[in-house]
Amino acid sequence: MRTALLQSSGRPGSVAGNLKVLDEAAGRAAAAGAGLLVTSELFLTGYAIGDDIARLAEPADGDAADAVAETAVRHGLAIAYSYPERAGDVVHNSVQLIRADGTRLANYRKTHLYGSFEREHFTPGDRPVVQAELDGLTVGLVICYDVEFPEYVRAHALAGTDLLLVPTAVMHPYQFVAESVVPVRAFENQMYIAYANRVGTEGEFEFAGLSVLAGPDGVARARAGRGEELVWADTDPEFLAASRQANPYLSDRRPELYGPPPA
Amino acid sequence: MRTALLQSSGRPGSVAGNLKVLDEAAGRAAAAGAGLLVTSELFLTGYAIGDDIARLAEPADGDAADAVAETAVRHGLAIAYSYPERAGDVVHNSVQLIRADGTRLANYRKTHLYGSFEREHFTPGDRPVVQAELDGLTVGLVICYDVEFPEYVRAHALAGTDLLLVPTAVMHPYQFVAESVVPVRAFENQMYIAYANRVGTEGEFEFAGLSVLAGPDGVARARAGRGEELVWADTDPEFLAASRQANPYLSDRRPELYGPPPA
Repeated sequence: MRTALLQSSGRPGSVAGNLKVLDEAAGRAAAAGAGLLVTSELFLTGYAIGDDIARLAEPADGDAADAVAETAVRHGLAIAYSYPERAGDVVHNSVQLIRADGTRLANYRKTHLYGSFEREHFTPGDRPVVQAELDGLTVGLVICYDVEFPEYVRAHALAGTDLLLVPTAVMHPYQFVAESVVPVRAFENQMYIAYANRVGTEGEFEFAGLSVLAGPDGVARARAGRGEELVWADTDPEFLAASRQANPYLSDRRPELYGPPPA
Repeated sequence: MRTALLQSSGRPGSVAGNLKVLDEAAGRAAAAGAGLLVTSELFLTGYAIGDDIARLAEPADGDAADAVAETAVRHGLAIAYSYPERAGDVVHNSVQLIRADGTRLANYRKTHLYGSFEREHFTPGDRPVVQAELDGLTVGLVICYDVEFPEYVRAHALAGTDLLLVPTAVMHPYQFVAESVVPVRAFENQMYIAYANRVGTEGEFEFAGLSVLAGPDGVARARAGRGEELVWADTDPEFLAASRQANPYLSDRRPELYGPPPA
């Protein structure tokens, strides 16, 4: 499956503007043969928009979800987009995967919130492994800081994730995460990882770009620079199977040794 | 503490030859101000020496341990050396840390054996986190393949390891481990990692060199090339403390979400 990463900060504060950017990118991705498009973190609204996050938050089946579903159907590809999710009194930092036929396949709420900004505006999720089947692949969903926790991505690997989608908003000086941590996660877990970042400056944050689709060999199959960009690469189930055969990390684990540390 | 990595395959099959190489390297490391010298995996005997592994194996308090202790005392620095350890009827792939005064501080038996060669010649260890205090640092011991398991190094981080020593024998085409996995392990666990590799060809194996001392920021403080080489760099407790403050991975974990996968 050809997977496209929309490295863009869109139009912070304007859901309508971001839906338009998304629709345009979906058209380009589909024209390039992509079956899936992944956005950056909180693409639907913008990241550093303060209290507008709560104001613009929508439920997983809200109007914006319908609009994204229309875009998916119009261009004939699946879309994983990140947004602030309204759930009663609280707001989650979420990503939703919508199939090319407009079906809402899976919704994930970020469990590892990063820094004071996110902790002020979001409630962390409590469901670690969220997956869906797409084009013969088991696709998993996490967001930004989540992927920096090796035990968390390991839980995905043990649950069979083939392709992990990671909307992100990683910022200066943490480009090491995009450059090195993500490819290593893909290698040590023998999966593909699609990591789509924001760019440019928002408020106090300077986002690092460098979106990447990393293969199970740790090699970047697609890599963006530091500006607005749409990149894509293919996942290859046969290569993934062969790589897992050659790198049997999951079966060589010794889980009886990984218990909690001494109190 | 200045930590030196002896990137060398020594004299495969000759314990006396390897003790001589070690003594010479210890002299150079001490002259450079190092307080600790780390060897590659199975440095004492050689790696790809087949049944000679069992023949040359010694207990942790054997003659070779005494000779290494003499070298440590002679040059006034600690030494972590890897060797085949005789323990009754079985042989372990081990690393022992000897202090500058000749005291045997800690001994670790590799728990994750790699490939058919190691499984044929060694019995895996069962004690995951082995540590010792050295010059104000909590030093941990693992060997080669062990470090590729993120949950295993995490156990060291949770137990307070500041500097992880990793004698290794990583081979072509796995240079990605030396280049990327080790620095990422150091970053995600907020520790220093000293990874000392073999070089050259032995039997079917072509070792990758690229020994590295990686800091908690993921930056290589020392990096060897592909030949026989002695490299060193300093660990900095103040930098480590500041880095942990800025990157609170351990306190941001959500262990309640990292349970075993669905059956």
